[in-house]
Amino acid sequence: MENNFIISAVMTIFSKDRVLFDYQSILIYGKDLTDVLPPPHALCVVFPQDKNELVSLVHFANEHRLSLVPSGGRTGYSGGAVAKQNDIIVSFEKMNHIVDFNAADKTLHCEAGVTLKAIQDYAKQLDLFYPVDFASAAECQIGGNIATNAGGLHVIRYGSTRQWVMGLTVITGRGDILGCNKGLVKNATGYDFRHLFIGSEGTLGFITHAILKLTALPKKTKVILFSVSNNQAITILLSVLQQAVSLIAFEFFCHTAMQCVMQAEQIAFPFQKNTDFYGLFEYESDDTVDLIIEKILQDQLNKNNISEILMSHHEKEANHLWRYRKGISRSLKKYFPYKFDLAVLPSTIFSFMRAAADLLRNKYAALETVWFGHVGDGNLHVNVLKPETVSEKDFAVRCAEISETIYAVIQHFNGSICAEHGVGLLKKPYLHYSKSDSEIQYMRGIKNIFDPNHVMNPGKLI
Amino acid sequence: MENNFIISAVMTIFSKDRVLFDYQSILIYGKDLTDVLPPPHALCVVFPQDKNELVSLVHFANEHRLSLVPSGGRTGYSGGAVAKQNDIIVSFEKMNHIVDFNAADKTLHCEAGVTLKAIQDYAKQLDLFYPVDFASAAECQIGGNIATNAGGLHVIRYGSTRQWVMGLTVITGRGDILGCNKGLVKNATGYDFRHLFIGSEGTLGFITHAILKLTALPKKTKVILFSVSNNQAITILLSVLQQAVSLIAFEFFCHTAMQCVMQAEQIAFPFQKNTDFYGLFEYESDDTVDLIIEKILQDQLNKNNISEILMSHHEKEANHLWRYRKGISRSLKKYFPYKFDLAVLPSTIFSFMRAAADLLRNKYAALETVWFGHVGDGNLHVNVLKPETVSEKDFAVRCAEISETIYAVIQHFNGSICAEHGVGLLKKPYLHYSKSDSEIQYMRGIKNIFDPNHVMNPGKLI
Repeated sequence: MENNFIISAVMTIFSKDRVLFDYQSILIYGKDLTDVLPPPHALCVVFPQDKNELVSLVHFANEHRLSLVPSGGRTGYSGGAVAKQNDIIVSFEKMNHIVDFNAADKTLHCEAGVTLKAIQDYAKQLDLFYPVDFASAAECQIGGNIATNAGGLHVIRYGSTRQWVMGLTVITGRGDILGCNKGLVKNATGYDFRHLFIGSEGTLGFITHAILKLTALPKKTKVILFSVSNNQAITILLSVLQQAVSLIAFEFFCHTAMQCVMQAEQIAFPFQKNTDFYGLFEYESDDTVDLIIEKILQDQLNKNNISEILMSHHEKEANHLWRYRKGISRSLKKYFPYKFDLAVLPSTIFSFMRAAADLLRNKYAALETVWFGHVGDGNLHVNVLKPETVSEKDFAVRCAEISETIYAVIQHFNGSICAEHGVGLLKKPYLHYSKSDSEIQYMRGIKNIFDPNHVMNPGKLI
Repeated sequence: MENNFIISAVMTIFSKDRVLFDYQSILIYGKDLTDVLPPPHALCVVFPQDKNELVSLVHFANEHRLSLVPSGGRTGYSGGAVAKQNDIIVSFEKMNHIVDFNAADKTLHCEAGVTLKAIQDYAKQLDLFYPVDFASAAECQIGGNIATNAGGLHVIRYGSTRQWVMGLTVITGRGDILGCNKGLVKNATGYDFRHLFIGSEGTLGFITHAILKLTALPKKTKVILFSVSNNQAITILLSVLQQAVSLIAFEFFCHTAMQCVMQAEQIAFPFQKNTDFYGLFEYESDDTVDLIIEKILQDQLNKNNISEILMSHHEKEANHLWRYRKGISRSLKKYFPYKFDLAVLPSTIFSFMRAAADLLRNKYAALETVWFGHVGDGNLHVNVLKPETVSEKDFAVRCAEISETIYAVIQHFNGSICAEHGVGLLKKPYLHYSKSDSEIQYMRGIKNIFDPNHVMNPGKLI
């Protein structure tokens, strides 16, 4: 009855065809890619078309103490978009317009529901570049990218999403519309709420619009896939390359990752012989840079740091080489992986990796782990695969144990329990490994300022 | 009596030689470069040597409801470091150590009182570059740079201070020490307090340490000083240059600025004939780029957009050409200038300038104004000079009037009343022209979370 009242009231805010309450829709819009959480519940899914509808919804939610869960492309891995009983899911699917493009300032003004791919394509048509990129570009939405400060493959060169946001329009948990920074390059008028909302995972309010900076397209790029005999060689190569040229990406992955991706993508093993680790880098190519790279690679081959190399000669080959890296996450899906998304200072990534790997080997020898990540950013993705013989429930218990083990090491390294995937529901119990108790208290204080009745994505992050 | 009690108590926190209470010291440490504010007052100046002393001081201040005013290099123009009756001034002069340098990560860990120049020099010794720069580099301190998100001459290429801060240690107004981000490249664990403290002007707490990113030194650079017949030509040149090469700086200034700087620096007029506006740009030079620049300049000369050019051939000449721009602010000091530090979208800087200049001409024809700024960042410095015949008091009244006029135009342009100099005391009455009432309310809410008893730089910013 109460629920029916709410749904009818919600239908007065949105036109009837923009409210869904069948269970199938809730299953679709109420979860992200996380498999280890219980299935979602919610009252309904709404599809706002403008910010005024959202303001009305936020006021209504405050009045009746309802909770609102933003639903973007739902490609997250932390349960940040997972809905529970009595939530109202707010899909940004219909707020998917590019509002305008300012050619002189090279800034794009768009709604939060535009996909990353649409932004990338729009920029490309203008001979410009929106440089944040990841495998889920076609599904994920810019609002979600901003709400999690998404990182991805090009951070080493272009930084995370934060760096490209020149302005935001947000609706706070109190229902106020704030225009944060409005595209200005320079603005020293106190606290910059734009940066507070970036990475806030929908807990302070809705991001409805963004002003994004575009940049020049990179020159022709080349991709090198390589194998190494030991992980030390990866950092050596990275360091030598970084001193000589400007890299667009520098990635690494283990042999198990290689095996999974080969099987899932039905692609052949690209090298002559197996090694423990493989790497991939991309750089802006010209004759001078090519010569430098060639010399570095030859030197590393001579020193037996690198084992084998494959170089792209055109875009198609580059895309093919990238498949070995970009396909990893997707290829692991069938093993119900428990995902760690860790970051330490780039200089300590392999010391951390050794410490974490030793612990896992000693305490959980039976569990297979897959390692990959963005070496240059200090970002390591560790995936623990569920053995077929272990039930999902038992696996969840064991992963909770492993989390405590791994996160204690992260704490020792002053690292982050969430490098680029956000905290959501899944990592929330472990936040104290990265943030001090008093920092978490201040976070709660900030939440109370923007969303005193906790209507905005409650239960997530903090 | 009460004051004596406070000073004795403060002396139990700091050694006796690190507390000064003579009026001369208060005059020195209790003000910035702002001339239009009344002289400072304070109980004393303290010189902490470490963060524990600061924590004790903050607790003491909370207990007795005292106010603490951070005092860095005091090169600000907004009165952000100006002390009043019963304040305790906290100088960071003795917290001026570089703690360490991480060569692999290219990050520098330092105390808040290190001068910008010391950081620039330290980086240079390592063949690296800290790219934020302004005329006051030798005096200003990094803590103050961060507290105001200082911009300066290289923003067009390297961004503001914000972009170079990888971590902060802060002491909040409650006396908690927070380690914000700790140097990580990737960290998605919720609200990023580092970015909240950047630009907070000491109103949330003290910044005690920073981790700064260094980058590669630019290649050999060249500087071009040029004159134009109209301001339209400046944006045309900027736009043509930006499409062809990467600029390190792009500045402009009016003929009055040129006259002031020539007189103050005792340097000759560098061109054949006077024009209304002059510009200066710097770029990374190599044979290819030099040819492109030469072609662009020749083309602009032929089109009569540019009137004359002077090019540097070595560092000494480059420094000399920069004097015409860097010396402006200093050269105006004797005219008691009322300084506007405005920003709009870079694409609208000259439309804004036209609107503002028309207003000033119509309403305040008798007042001389000096215009200069960073065209590529949309940042315009308008200086209204005090006529000799007008008293300081009358001038202040008139400037308050002008402020309302100019800021109304800024509001119309969705611009910022403070681009890079901060709000402080001086711009606080006008903050509502850049921030909405509800945004200011949220700012107050945040202030209350970090500093509930308002001991931190009270009365500034909000």
